[in-house]
Amino acid sequence: VSDFTFDWDREARTGTAEAVLCAPKTSAQIAAILAEAAGAHKRLLLTRLAADQHADLPEALRALLDFDPLSRTAILGSPHGGTPVQGALIVAAGTADLFAAREAARTLEFHGHAAPVVADVGVAGLWRLTAQIERLRAARVLIVAAGMEGALFSVIAGLVAAPVIALPTSVGYGISAGGTVALHAALASCAPGVLVVNIDNGFGAAVSAIKILHLSNGGP
Amino acid sequence: VSDFTFDWDREARTGTAEAVLCAPKTSAQIAAILAEAAGAHKRLLLTRLAADQHADLPEALRALLDFDPLSRTAILGSPHGGTPVQGALIVAAGTADLFAAREAARTLEFHGHAAPVVADVGVAGLWRLTAQIERLRAARVLIVAAGMEGALFSVIAGLVAAPVIALPTSVGYGISAGGTVALHAALASCAPGVLVVNIDNGFGAAVSAIKILHLSNGGP
Amino acid sequence: VSDFTFDWDREARTGTAEAVLCAPKTSAQIAAILAEAAGAHKRLLLTRLAADQHADLPEALRALLDFDPLSRTAILGSPHGGTPVQGALIVAAGTADLFAAREAARTLEFHGHAAPVVADVGVAGLWRLTAQIERLRAARVLIVAAGMEGALFSVIAGLVAAPVIALPTSVGYGISAGGTVALHAALASCAPGVLVVNIDNGFGAAVSAIKILHLSNGGP
Amino acid sequence: VSDFTFDWDREARTGTAEAVLCAPKTSAQIAAILAEAAGAHKRLLLTRLAADQHADLPEALRALLDFDPLSRTAILGSPHGGTPVQGALIVAAGTADLFAAREAARTLEFHGHAAPVVADVGVAGLWRLTAQIERLRAARVLIVAAGMEGALFSVIAGLVAAPVIALPTSVGYGISAGGTVALHAALASCAPGVLVVNIDNGFGAAVSAIKILHLSNGGP
Amino acid sequence: VSDFTFDWDREARTGTAEAVLCAPKTSAQIAAILAEAAGAHKRLLLTRLAADQHADLPEALRALLDFDPLSRTAILGSPHGGTPVQGALIVAAGTADLFAAREAARTLEFHGHAAPVVADVGVAGLWRLTAQIERLRAARVLIVAAGMEGALFSVIAGLVAAPVIALPTSVGYGISAGGTVALHAALASCAPGVLVVNIDNGFGAAVSAIKILHLSNGGP
Amino acid sequence: VSDFTFDWDREARTGTAEAVLCAPKTSAQIAAILAEAAGAHKRLLLTRLAADQHADLPEALRALLDFDPLSRTAILGSPHGGTPVQGALIVAAGTADLFAAREAARTLEFHGHAAPVVADVGVAGLWRLTAQIERLRAARVLIVAAGMEGALFSVIAGLVAAPVIALPTSVGYGISAGGTVALHAALASCAPGVLVVNIDNGFGAAVSAIKILHLSNGGP
Amino acid sequence: VSDFTFDWDREARTGTAEAVLCAPKTSAQIAAILAEAAGAHKRLLLTRLAADQHADLPEALRALLDFDPLSRTAILGSPHGGTPVQGALIVAAGTADLFAAREAARTLEFHGHAAPVVADVGVAGLWRLTAQIERLRAARVLIVAAGMEGALFSVIAGLVAAPVIALPTSVGYGISAGGTVALHAALASCAPGVLVVNIDNGFGAAVSAIKILHLSNGGP
Amino acid sequence: VSDFTFDWDREARTGTAEAVLCAPKTSAQIAAILAEAAGAHKRLLLTRLAADQHADLPEALRALLDFDPLSRTAILGSPHGGTPVQGALIVAAGTADLFAAREAARTLEFHGHAAPVVADVGVAGLWRLTAQIERLRAARVLIVAAGMEGALFSVIAGLVAAPVIALPTSVGYGISAGGTVALHAALASCAPGVLVVNIDNGFGAAVSAIKILHLSNGGP
Repeated sequence: VSDFTFDWDREARTGTAEAVLCAPKTSAQIAAILAEAAGAHKRLLLTRLAADQHADLPEALRALLDFDPLSRTAILGSPHGGTPVQGALIVAAGTADLFAAREAARTLEFHGHAAPVVADVGVAGLWRLTAQIERLRAARVLIVAAGMEGALFSVIAGLVAAPVIALPTSVGYGISAGGTVALHAALASCAPGVLVVNIDNGFGAAVSAIKILHLSNGGP
Repeated sequence: VSDFTFDWDREARTGTAEAVLCAPKTSAQIAAILAEAAGAHKRLLLTRLAADQHADLPEALRALLDFDPLSRTAILGSPHGGTPVQGALIVAAGTADLFAAREAARTLEFHGHAAPVVADVGVAGLWRLTAQIERLRAARVLIVAAGMEGALFSVIAGLVAAPVIALPTSVGYGISAGGTVALHAALASCAPGVLVVNIDNGFGAAVSAIKILHLSNGGP
Repeated sequence: VSDFTFDWDREARTGTAEAVLCAPKTSAQIAAILAEAAGAHKRLLLTRLAADQHADLPEALRALLDFDPLSRTAILGSPHGGTPVQGALIVAAGTADLFAAREAARTLEFHGHAAPVVADVGVAGLWRLTAQIERLRAARVLIVAAGMEGALFSVIAGLVAAPVIALPTSVGYGISAGGTVALHAALASCAPGVLVVNIDNGFGAAVSAIKILHLSNGGP
Repeated sequence: VSDFTFDWDREARTGTAEAVLCAPKTSAQIAAILAEAAGAHKRLLLTRLAADQHADLPEALRALLDFDPLSRTAILGSPHGGTPVQGALIVAAGTADLFAAREAARTLEFHGHAAPVVADVGVAGLWRLTAQIERLRAARVLIVAAGMEGALFSVIAGLVAAPVIALPTSVGYGISAGGTVALHAALASCAPGVLVVNIDNGFGAAVSAIKILHLSNGGP
Repeated sequence: VSDFTFDWDREARTGTAEAVLCAPKTSAQIAAILAEAAGAHKRLLLTRLAADQHADLPEALRALLDFDPLSRTAILGSPHGGTPVQGALIVAAGTADLFAAREAARTLEFHGHAAPVVADVGVAGLWRLTAQIERLRAARVLIVAAGMEGALFSVIAGLVAAPVIALPTSVGYGISAGGTVALHAALASCAPGVLVVNIDNGFGAAVSAIKILHLSNGGP
Repeated sequence: VSDFTFDWDREARTGTAEAVLCAPKTSAQIAAILAEAAGAHKRLLLTRLAADQHADLPEALRALLDFDPLSRTAILGSPHGGTPVQGALIVAAGTADLFAAREAARTLEFHGHAAPVVADVGVAGLWRLTAQIERLRAARVLIVAAGMEGALFSVIAGLVAAPVIALPTSVGYGISAGGTVALHAALASCAPGVLVVNIDNGFGAAVSAIKILHLSNGGP
Repeated sequence: VSDFTFDWDREARTGTAEAVLCAPKTSAQIAAILAEAAGAHKRLLLTRLAADQHADLPEALRALLDFDPLSRTAILGSPHGGTPVQGALIVAAGTADLFAAREAARTLEFHGHAAPVVADVGVAGLWRLTAQIERLRAARVLIVAAGMEGALFSVIAGLVAAPVIALPTSVGYGISAGGTVALHAALASCAPGVLVVNIDNGFGAAVSAIKILHLSNGGP
Repeated sequence: VSDFTFDWDREARTGTAEAVLCAPKTSAQIAAILAEAAGAHKRLLLTRLAADQHADLPEALRALLDFDPLSRTAILGSPHGGTPVQGALIVAAGTADLFAAREAARTLEFHGHAAPVVADVGVAGLWRLTAQIERLRAARVLIVAAGMEGALFSVIAGLVAAPVIALPTSVGYGISAGGTVALHAALASCAPGVLVVNIDNGFGAAVSAIKILHLSNGGP
């Protein structure tokens, strides 16, 4: 038995299911959690599962997982059935930000949401962004992934009426290494209506988007 | 004429009106902006208007303002008419956080929203929070204002299904002086679904709440 | 002979024995210290002994050690005899915090104390914590290990009368990478009675708990 | 009525009474809290009450307070009766640290404890410290207030068996301005058994000392 | 005689004249410098001269100065004669950034350059910027003053071929207080061709612009 | 097809071509970008291409690249033809700074500029610098690469009339690890006319130099 | 009686006398210390005595002090007699750094040393420094006071054989506000032989210089 | 030929020879420097030469080096002849600090100085330090290597008359990881006469000690 106390009731209580953050856990701890969930026939989302952590899992458990190396996510159990909920749009400033955008997309899909991604629309070539303006304005909530100086958060928030969830990424170097410049830019945005999550927290951005969209469908 | 370029169209484009952040402006600059807005018969929200900045304004302009010293906000023009939109709830961890909570409340009211405030429910006495649990769960979006270590953000996000907007405040001393500990705690919350704004940014928290509630009323 | 000057008198002087922090030492230095202690028939606690440092030790020395990879601790000499002293309780916010909790537990056991661990009671699911409330209130001193935003320190300190030793861990990512957010949250706690040690310092937390419990048994 | 929700039950629940941190509150908020407590015939400890905040209070409320400008504390209600509990000792590295040492002393006295202070024993003249060694070793718990580089925490913790609560102060300049160097030195101490509170948090240090001493008197 | 060693030769050596940074000097020091320069019949630019420092100067010296309180600059001696050199354009993100933009403008004018300012074109309303696009593209070097999140630097650098000198300002609050977020955003810009000066350093931005424009007029 | 949206028009719009920052991209992403560019018969500059990323590329693509391991740059397509544009000079404080100086040189060469490098002229032996003074003064724009304390930026800017682009490098250890001390020294320079780019950003320094030199050749 | 424990023996033990750092003390505390020293007929050096603290002292004590407002130092008792010890030289980068240079000079003079000051030799005009080269090389120990980017430390240390004590000052703004950039530059100097003291610590720089010069006169 | 410009004249000019900091250089660069120095029959000190960098050097060059892996130093050429200069003493707080202490010792030896090391005298067991008091007081200059909280700097400086060079080391974890806490403690020391070098900079500490001792032998 694992040391992990599952909060199976979380989805009923807060609207989204518990997920397992794998990065700080040992492979033995992850395997114990997976075995317990599989034994209980539960669906489970794993985030920050590095390729070598995944490779260290027992073959039998690995066979149960849908693993995506770019986003470092794995899903235990069958895909979410039914028609995907529409409304969310994910924007990635550059190719390098796709890993975080994809973590958000996988989280949305796990919960039964559509998760389209618009990639490589950084502000250094503004025309790439304005070419997508209608698509941006049609979304009911936007997740914007950007590293470096994070100018994209403010530019998009000034163009659309929907709430913008800024997902700063760790993409950068020198003064922007690790993503704090993008994070701070999101928090300091001169465009009101920017809501911010931790660096690379695609999971948290998606969970928040789900809660926001849930509202427009009659909840809570 | 002021150097200020009004973005009168912003409400149509993004759903909420432009506001004037007064702290970094001189009294002469604020007066010029107010005069131009008053001449155009526009409503205007002023934030971070310190008592001495307010006192420095010409008498004639001061007479046009509804000024609230605790939140350092002033409103030019008549109150928003019509029935207030319901759905937002503001929670303040302590008495000292009320200045920021009230900035959020004034912003909501300026845009025609109800803005009830639940005060002094910090986690050091958890019973104060659990006594309000039904009220918290009835809200469609929550703004939680807290300084110090900001534990309240995680605790509330673990209890409700609605999105939680964390509004870290500058209340603190020593290592938490200026509010960065509360800000970081909000970003690092182990409870998914916490969305964060800049320290003391009650205005931004309220604007985001309005955008979120707008969704559930059929927009965008 | 090692360059290490043993402070064999420390236990008599301060109530707890010297330990060897291995991380910043070379394997040759650790081996020399171990050889000297073994030659003098002394018990010794080693902390932060990485698996590869352990593997680099001479076979003969390794055979004398009780090594625990999760906590990276090793004990030279026989276990502490006698009935374990009761009173301490260790709480770990999540599975990922167990490495630090276990360093504290091993230190307590080395000194002849019982060291029960309550795991995975993070605040995102408050019911997991309240289900353990009687056990928490029965402890005479609590060590609480948590990373991320460290909200657990404040919540527990608001519920119990015993002193709470906050043991912030390096579990986190983005803004909370390395544990400074949890550390700062512990220091800034709005709940009085929280005492703080360095990040991942399970050894120091345990030594302090031993000193506190020593008081209630008639010392110093 | 104040916005403040008194936690009158806190002493029963956690062993020490609630106190009011005045620095971040307006004078009007402090006056409302005081009036409510006075009306309920409660004793109350106020901390971080600046001289000008004190002067701004209504005369009638000021007359009810025992105000100490050095520690910026005020006590509403009669002194604690009965024989003071012995065991705590407060050490101040320098004259400049006395403000924080005195906040701890006033908090101890408010709760019925003796609070002797040993002043000006900084490590630059070690003889001043060793001259007091017997007194230090007789204490059951020590609160050590120091700013600058905070070397005193480690030196004392290496000399005594009782737990040491490090109270870093904001005394310093240049790199040590605001007290973070002393705080970090306390956390990084090479002497085990140092427990740390926030910068200038004499109140928290005292509350923790009370909880620790409570143990040796049979509780919890 | 002042302790100040004039570098009267600097203009010949480096292309721009020495200026006196007044903020860290006492009024007596500033007065001595002014008296020496006036006695030598030299023109002199003073920067960061606070209104109260200006007021503290002897009446006779004050009479020789052209003082501008918004930019906190003063000029000793007659204006630069001749036709202003064209080519520089100053852009200010908001009204609050005008103080720094104006320091740049005054420095340009002191050296005989035209210094037009385009104000209030922040990215939250992108139309304000695109309305000025022809003017931006006609400039040979741009100085862009912005605080908060500094998104304007990247947006403009993506639109024009001329070099962009980012002048981050101290306008901001919370995480962006003091201007470090804008500074870091400028350095981390995803748009190549952004050159950065210290926060609020309008003087340095202008001196660099003069050197760049000097090139296109045949120098060095 | 790659997720990368080429901004082929950038050179026409801003004067310098787009480049691909490889460090934060996966080898698969880099390969897709290269394939698309090669298919379109475009020249392309790759920066921050680590040796192992380069080795991971398909053989066929690798054969198309001119790879330089010291500067971690690669060029797809033929060298720039024509006579190199003169005017830029690159100065490197020490041997260790050559990697960044060479990134600048490769970028200049890619765009058809000459890129001479003066190496190892750090200020600890000032004679090494003064021996090169005529060469420094003949340049129309200087790129100065330095790590450690970055004193070279100020010394050179005090000696020449041309604009100085400070390129702080990550060379350093202890307090200067990562290059922030050199970066801050550049920004705080007491010598006016220093323009700064991000740590190790040789590419950005070169692009800015090209824009500046473009001016003196009749543009924009 | 003061709470201050004089370390009258310090001069015999460590070579320099105790001084009183006034900034963090109340005027009442300073007055008590002065009265005790005056009563014991001791000489005493006071540092960081602000003008208003000085003005708050009792008239009778003020009459005993030689107060220097620029350096914020005061001396109780007669000047040091005898021929001043030669060997130290103080260099100040700019006029604004004189306050710290003068604190060092006053400390040297209090201990019987000559304390010549060379002012305004910042590196932006290197000729100002080279004009003084013989004087610099004749010194046996140099104290160099500089703020901003602190390039002067490295330049001087590369030119002389004597030890250089870097005295970083708080002169600066933006990124260099408070003096940390100058401090870090001193620590990271590429010129070996730079020894560093805390920001604005002219007293400590002088005490160290005295100890160094004491060596060459036969001690310890 | 290497890109390295030897400053062979440095010893004559500044009293100590140039050394080569290897960490930020490639093996090819180090080999070129060594070959040039060997060809010129020069002695040379290499610092921060990692074991793998050493292993990467050509066999022929490696044969010329006296390499010490603990201190990561190598010496090209014969040992310094003659009677070692006495006066310096190196103190290491713990076994883990020996790597830096040894870099200082090797540098002293390279220049013909004796370099005795006193190890493991940390303040947690003050008796270890006081047992060495006579030896400490006999030194003419002390280099004190300590990491963690760096309390040893202040304790020793309060006990001796000779100048103390604080050599903070990177030994630590959590808040003290990398050595900044020890560095800051050294700078903030309440004991005057502490001079500080960069973290792990044993070379710089030794060079400064040599300059100081040179004074007492009649120089400069």
